Amino acid sequence: MKLFYAPGTCALASHIALEEAGAEFTATRVDFSRNEQQQPDYLKINPKGRVPALVTDRGILTENPAILAFVAQSFPDARLAPLRDPFALAEVQAFNSYLASTVHVAHAHGRRGYRWADSQSSFDDMKRKLPEVMGSCFDMIEREMFKGPWVLGEAYTICDPYLFTIAEWLEGDGVDPKRFPKVHAHRTRMYDRPAVKRALAQEGRG
Amino acid sequence: MKLFYAPGTCALASHIALEEAGAEFTATRVDFSRNEQQQPDYLKINPKGRVPALVTDRGILTENPAILAFVAQSFPDARLAPLRDPFALAEVQAFNSYLASTVHVAHAHGRRGYRWADSQSSFDDMKRKLPEVMGSCFDMIEREMFKGPWVLGEAYTICDPYLFTIAEWLEGDGVDPKRFPKVHAHRTRMYDRPAVKRALAQEGRG
Repeated sequence: MKLFYAPGTCALASHIALEEAGAEFTATRVDFSRNEQQQPDYLKINPKGRVPALVTDRGILTENPAILAFVAQSFPDARLAPLRDPFALAEVQAFNSYLASTVHVAHAHGRRGYRWADSQSSFDDMKRKLPEVMGSCFDMIEREMFKGPWVLGEAYTICDPYLFTIAEWLEGDGVDPKRFPKVHAHRTRMYDRPAVKRALAQEGRG
Repeated sequence: MKLFYAPGTCALASHIALEEAGAEFTATRVDFSRNEQQQPDYLKINPKGRVPALVTDRGILTENPAILAFVAQSFPDARLAPLRDPFALAEVQAFNSYLASTVHVAHAHGRRGYRWADSQSSFDDMKRKLPEVMGSCFDMIEREMFKGPWVLGEAYTICDPYLFTIAEWLEGDGVDPKRFPKVHAHRTRMYDRPAVKRALAQEGRG
């Protein structure tokens, strides 16, 4: 398999999961500084012009929640999700869906306001509000969702690399991560995992 | 089971899926005009203050992609997803994740810009851009994703009620649905399904 990623993006979540699963794959960097994600060669891989994209022998997958679930289901021995328990698996998917459609989206307003508006004043407005919006999302996670020591309790799941990836954006978004002690301790715990170290090293952050 | 919904929201996708599955459930309306979704009673059910929320005997689930997959996995005889094929199931999840984190989010900028900005001028800017943003999303679906006759080909899946639900918003978002002939024909085909008729009738749109 081949994972297309860019450093500092949400692709790190899928990257860590592939490492946790012991999958054989190569990681290929897409150079966002040269806008490579919008060039014809990459758009053939992912017409949406985003990362991650995972090339498999069956075809190409996109969207973190889908790739994460695919990795968990393809490598059941890694026990990355409660595959046979529909309710528990839905809790995994609900958490990841919240990260994708609320928290990641909140973050995107800091630098990519042009997706939803045209004026510089709107971009400035969104950027000003970013710490408040990201802070609210992490309040919700800290207070209502995070069970500990891993996101959903005793078992490490595909929720963990995804939360870790997005929690890494807090400082850059003007939010003090120490406001969320459980999430902050989780992040520290994640740095100790060999799979996380390997993924970070491969992305040049070793 | 008990589904909390509001008419005109994305909860319709989960509502239709429950009908398709032949699940036993009741549908309870949350009155958005009275801001009931932000009142303490409802926040006990879903602290995020959104719909859908599905009360099960194991606990409460939120987020459409998670509820849809839960329904498919809990009622395998309804064949609403390729449960045993990790790649095909990931294609289902990728499509639904795109709807949740890109298309629904685009739509939300038309009326809920206050989630990400503070100024009326920003809200007006987002509202002006809405037809362009929603149009681009549906271009992507029409051109790159939709296989036909159902979203992922010959088999009806949990992608179908979700696409139908969001496609219903096009006119209100200033986009002519006839620009997307395959998606438009899909919508017409969906109206013919008994499960869709039942869900719409229950939501007062019979």
